Amino acid sequence: MPRVVVHVMPKPEILDPQGKAVAGALPRLGFEGIASVRQGKRFELEVEGEVTEAVLGTIREAAQTLLSNPVIEDVVDIEVVPAVEAAR
Amino acid sequence: MPRVVVHVMPKPEILDPQGKAVAGALPRLGFEGIASVRQGKRFELEVEGEVTEAVLGTIREAAQTLLSNPVIEDVVDIEVVPAVEAAR
Repeated sequence: MPRVVVHVMPKPEILDPQGKAVAGALPRLGFEGIASVRQGKRFELEVEGEVTEAVLGTIREAAQTLLSNPVIEDVVDIEVVPAVEAAR
Repeated sequence: MPRVVVHVMPKPEILDPQGKAVAGALPRLGFEGIASVRQGKRFELEVEGEVTEAVLGTIREAAQTLLSNPVIEDVVDIEVVPAVEAAR
């Protein structure tokens, strides 16, 4: 089945406490060289049938309404993975 | 500053209640054609200086220990974004 991956990140001007917590933990665990971390979400959607323009339109709308909160988050990427690769 | 993006997903055999909730909400909101949804995490790490093999090694180790829980999650991708593109 083909897969569409939706990438959501907190907007740059929005405080990201999860990312801050990870960034603070890195040096404590001995991982050096990372200046900052931001944490977002990754959704993998399995599509029934072909990924047509209509399906992509539906997913774009769902990404803006259900998968992200447009007040505090940006949909940074929507990526189509063909069925052959998705099966790997 | 160059950026490294770490992608984490729940293992295929692990139940994903967040993804299930999203998959259930899609048709209720009128979004049809999606068979299933899985929800994972996306971390954007800003790297101080160059992304050398040593830095990538550090990030790979951090991805397996701090950014994911190897019992229930897989690090599905680690992606390097050069400074020029990261600044966009």
